[in-house]
Amino acid sequence: MSSLRGGIDLGGTKIQALVVDGERTVRGRARHPTPTTGGPEQVAEAMVAAQQEAAQDAGLSAASELRGVGAGCPGQVDADAGTVERAGNLPHWEAPFPLAERLQRGLAAPVRLGNDVSVATMAEFHLGGGAPYSSLLGVFWGTGVGGGIVLDGRLWEGRGSAGEIGHTVIKRGGARCPCGRRGCLEAYAGRKAMEARARAKHERGTKTELFEIMRHRGRDRLTSGVWERAVDGGDHLAHRLLERAVRALGTGIASAINLLDVEAVVLGGGLGVRFGARYLQDIEREMVRHLFHDSKPPKLFVTELGDDGGGLGAAMLVPEHPQPARAEPAGATAG
Amino acid sequence: MSSLRGGIDLGGTKIQALVVDGERTVRGRARHPTPTTGGPEQVAEAMVAAQQEAAQDAGLSAASELRGVGAGCPGQVDADAGTVERAGNLPHWEAPFPLAERLQRGLAAPVRLGNDVSVATMAEFHLGGGAPYSSLLGVFWGTGVGGGIVLDGRLWEGRGSAGEIGHTVIKRGGARCPCGRRGCLEAYAGRKAMEARARAKHERGTKTELFEIMRHRGRDRLTSGVWERAVDGGDHLAHRLLERAVRALGTGIASAINLLDVEAVVLGGGLGVRFGARYLQDIEREMVRHLFHDSKPPKLFVTELGDDGGGLGAAMLVPEHPQPARAEPAGATAG
Repeated sequence: MSSLRGGIDLGGTKIQALVVDGERTVRGRARHPTPTTGGPEQVAEAMVAAQQEAAQDAGLSAASELRGVGAGCPGQVDADAGTVERAGNLPHWEAPFPLAERLQRGLAAPVRLGNDVSVATMAEFHLGGGAPYSSLLGVFWGTGVGGGIVLDGRLWEGRGSAGEIGHTVIKRGGARCPCGRRGCLEAYAGRKAMEARARAKHERGTKTELFEIMRHRGRDRLTSGVWERAVDGGDHLAHRLLERAVRALGTGIASAINLLDVEAVVLGGGLGVRFGARYLQDIEREMVRHLFHDSKPPKLFVTELGDDGGGLGAAMLVPEHPQPARAEPAGATAG
Repeated sequence: MSSLRGGIDLGGTKIQALVVDGERTVRGRARHPTPTTGGPEQVAEAMVAAQQEAAQDAGLSAASELRGVGAGCPGQVDADAGTVERAGNLPHWEAPFPLAERLQRGLAAPVRLGNDVSVATMAEFHLGGGAPYSSLLGVFWGTGVGGGIVLDGRLWEGRGSAGEIGHTVIKRGGARCPCGRRGCLEAYAGRKAMEARARAKHERGTKTELFEIMRHRGRDRLTSGVWERAVDGGDHLAHRLLERAVRALGTGIASAINLLDVEAVVLGGGLGVRFGARYLQDIEREMVRHLFHDSKPPKLFVTELGDDGGGLGAAMLVPEHPQPARAEPAGATAG
């Protein structure tokens, strides 16, 4: 059987599919935009298409030749049931959707689901910059702001929903968050919230090139690339909104460190990959300002796996070795 | 050798000493005010006096008859070195002070130090309302706001400083905290901060009975009892400041739950014991407002161990059975 495994990172903006070998080297890749209309069916279809394309990129005839495929998904993931529900940043994805089964049908390969930020955090912990540490906080700065927690080398998932650092309240009564609440970190730093604020400001007369660049690049939303182009061009509004996001990130990370005191923090996600290096010192300064024990800040670094972290972590969901069809006592004969 | 153990809870306002038997039943107790002047030496002296008095209350002639004494302390505790440093709410206690040695000298019994909120959280986890759960967040609402974290049955202490929920930023740029930073939970809910605000308001003409009650009771600060008397008497300022504290607590706890998703939260500390039952529903409502997964809030409850939690947890620092003088391989003869 092939040692190649597939890994799909389902993001709010893009679907990244990888093919990874036994040494965890990337052998094939494909990237599709995440559908913004339709619902889970359309998203699943795009995930299948991306993984098939990545399989071909790796020289396979189809994804069915893979040992298996892992998928890292936002929202509430039930890995055993193979379902995903309440994926807030995806279109009309509220009720539990049987994603594993749907992908299995499209790919003709075994599929295992995991939480997107959890798998990306574990990938960084094992394969990336987290390797020297035994505890790590992953902060994924993209459409929303997600978090993953590794303590004593193990993922901490609480009752299944831990890591929602994006909904740390950094300002009681503050900005409205896409989740409907007020003052969450994500209300300041999530790309969705940043776009909404840019649009409102623009409509009220604030000058910005953001939407011009978006249209020029054929996008229907402010992608990380659009933000980067605008900031590089000296766009004041883009610059101000990013600085606001950076302050919020530093504050929210500090609160998490005051509580957890982990050794290191990795910054990933679409905006984290794009802007992490540029703003790392600013985020760190804001963080240290709010650290109760400010003489020993954690190590803060940008993901070493870049955009591949989610897909690599998802591929790690597939067992290294073939699993027996079922766990039988030694010597038992399958009925 | 006696099965009785001593436990000292060193708080910002009071020192509570217990004597506990092998069944973890309290056999003796004493309470002394925490010195507000002097420094670590004076505090250690008061701790010795309290534990001696508790020993006599338990029918012993002196604390030297105890198997050992545990002490739960605020600030940075180095249990192995037997030192405490940077105990912010205690007088002039910045540099590491050899508290274990100083107590051992005064008590003529072995002494083991622990972090005050960690030991109180473990006591609640094992002996109190936390018993049905495998993960628990302890929130100690008193002079400051401290926190303890139990995950999968084990205390999580990070690099030694985890649990500082009092310094979760709930309002960026908000009220000044006794720690010097802005917007911390403790800046709104810690008794020290509440007193400072009450004093400032009073000096600027806001009517309140708080300081009258304080003087009448012969206190030099607004103890939990003073706050209770004022609220019971319908004091508007006291009421408003407590409601402000309650909103802050709900918000800060919600941020912690969004991150950790533990099963239960225990509310303790001087104000928690005094006001927990009265304000529990308000704190819970505030918490749920800010929970990202608000359909499954954690169980929130007031400490079942009351004021004894800290002392019980401290006593649990003393080993149940006599320890060998040193760990020698079996059969070895001590030199």
